[in-house]
Amino acid sequence: MTELIGVDWGTSNLRIMRLGADGAVLDRRVDPRGAGRLDPDEFAGVLEEVAGDWLGLAPVLIAGMAGSRQGWMEAPYAFCPSGAEGLAARLARPDAARDIRIVPGVALTPRGLGDVMRGEETQALGLFGARDSGLMVAPGTHSKWVRVDNGAIAGFRTHLTGELFAAVRQATLIGRDMGEPGGDDAAFDEGVRLALSDPAITAHLFGVRVRRLADDLSHGAAADFLSGLLIGAELAAEGAHRDHPVQVVGEAALSRRYVRALALAGFIDVGVADGETAVARGLHRIWKAMP
Amino acid sequence: MTELIGVDWGTSNLRIMRLGADGAVLDRRVDPRGAGRLDPDEFAGVLEEVAGDWLGLAPVLIAGMAGSRQGWMEAPYAFCPSGAEGLAARLARPDAARDIRIVPGVALTPRGLGDVMRGEETQALGLFGARDSGLMVAPGTHSKWVRVDNGAIAGFRTHLTGELFAAVRQATLIGRDMGEPGGDDAAFDEGVRLALSDPAITAHLFGVRVRRLADDLSHGAAADFLSGLLIGAELAAEGAHRDHPVQVVGEAALSRRYVRALALAGFIDVGVADGETAVARGLHRIWKAMP
Repeated sequence: MTELIGVDWGTSNLRIMRLGADGAVLDRRVDPRGAGRLDPDEFAGVLEEVAGDWLGLAPVLIAGMAGSRQGWMEAPYAFCPSGAEGLAARLARPDAARDIRIVPGVALTPRGLGDVMRGEETQALGLFGARDSGLMVAPGTHSKWVRVDNGAIAGFRTHLTGELFAAVRQATLIGRDMGEPGGDDAAFDEGVRLALSDPAITAHLFGVRVRRLADDLSHGAAADFLSGLLIGAELAAEGAHRDHPVQVVGEAALSRRYVRALALAGFIDVGVADGETAVARGLHRIWKAMP
Repeated sequence: MTELIGVDWGTSNLRIMRLGADGAVLDRRVDPRGAGRLDPDEFAGVLEEVAGDWLGLAPVLIAGMAGSRQGWMEAPYAFCPSGAEGLAARLARPDAARDIRIVPGVALTPRGLGDVMRGEETQALGLFGARDSGLMVAPGTHSKWVRVDNGAIAGFRTHLTGELFAAVRQATLIGRDMGEPGGDDAAFDEGVRLALSDPAITAHLFGVRVRRLADDLSHGAAADFLSGLLIGAELAAEGAHRDHPVQVVGEAALSRRYVRALALAGFIDVGVADGETAVARGLHRIWKAMP
């Protein structure tokens, strides 16, 4: 039985799910019309077009960039610490005539925001139970480290790692002719270890050039070494969390690299979780917490 | 009286100087035909064209990228430690019929090179006397920290800081519409302090985005804040040198920012030196050390 229509409306992708008890995913539809390419008045039509036959079955709850200022309707940020109840109390309603709500994003601090996220708060609440504690690591263009304490979002930090990797590849001499990462674990590990042992990332980046000049680093290995350097720099900055349980949520090949790097950085309890399951459970949990 | 024709032939610029006693610059000519745009067989002609009337006056000594594998003639790297005598013993002679020599670059280690420079070794030897010790910091696309110990080059490290700054501006969302740095010292200082206090540079870069979102950082201040972050990261990695005398050599506006940042990082003895004077004295010193 469908209890909730859960929607994960990110910048570049739309995922609509029929959810049963405890947020179990009964069916899903995906569409490339992410929030980043839609005007505010287009969201309702896209939702109707992709899943109009589902909309009468149950209430709709949306997480992600659909709630940003440039999205369907701004759902102003909640602040840390914030649990499912806190988010449920701040849902936005973009269509007064229908049972559709948008989960707010979370800002680290009220003043100056500090850091912000939209969507990852829902995934994190879905990964950990109401009394659990741990960290969600969601690698990608912007890598998020979300700390859950006793079932509530206690803090988080975002790293520009993926975007920085792309920028170095695209716009520096060391990125010229660089291949795709993923083929050379030894080069990746070497980059991670170097960044963990010494945070001089500006110097290590020049080192990529020197190693290429000296034929110390093959053409194919350079992308893995660079990826290891930047992920290693991210992990060095988050090393204080190494004794906490970590769940990695993201694209499979990238998650695999993070799991390798987390082990090298001394994280002792690392699992990999499915992103769809996490957001579905999180949406269900927030919906159950509605006042 | 002209003792030496000194040439600083970098990637993007050519500078030819008539040098007198102790390397005093009597006259100079500059030309945009840097080594980066010349084929090996074009160097002799450019030298003749720009300063043919000087070539009979004194021997010619060239420093910089003209000695690289893609330059006029490769002058294989010397290794650290290396003083004026060590460099003078390894000069390349691109034209057997004439008294023209090229100073070798310096590599940190024989095996794998470790790090490399061409031109900065000559500047550093010109900045410090035969018994002096200190550091030359040459900021720019690739920022060099060259350590001179008792008149010899003892070690050095290169940071990709300038190129990374350009890549972030060119190829990330935080760089979009960013202005030129230099107008907002307070924003620059804030970036430096943040990077010095916490080496989490990937997170600080995302912070630029959050500050812009929260209107915490004006359009004009963003480039200064970013510049401060990256220079601060470089200085954090070189903090072990803070008790040594430092001479900053480079473009005036950038040198000014480095002097600010070095003070914030606790460097106690910081001066600014002129690049032309340094390379002229270094060339003269190497020439005098010839066997």
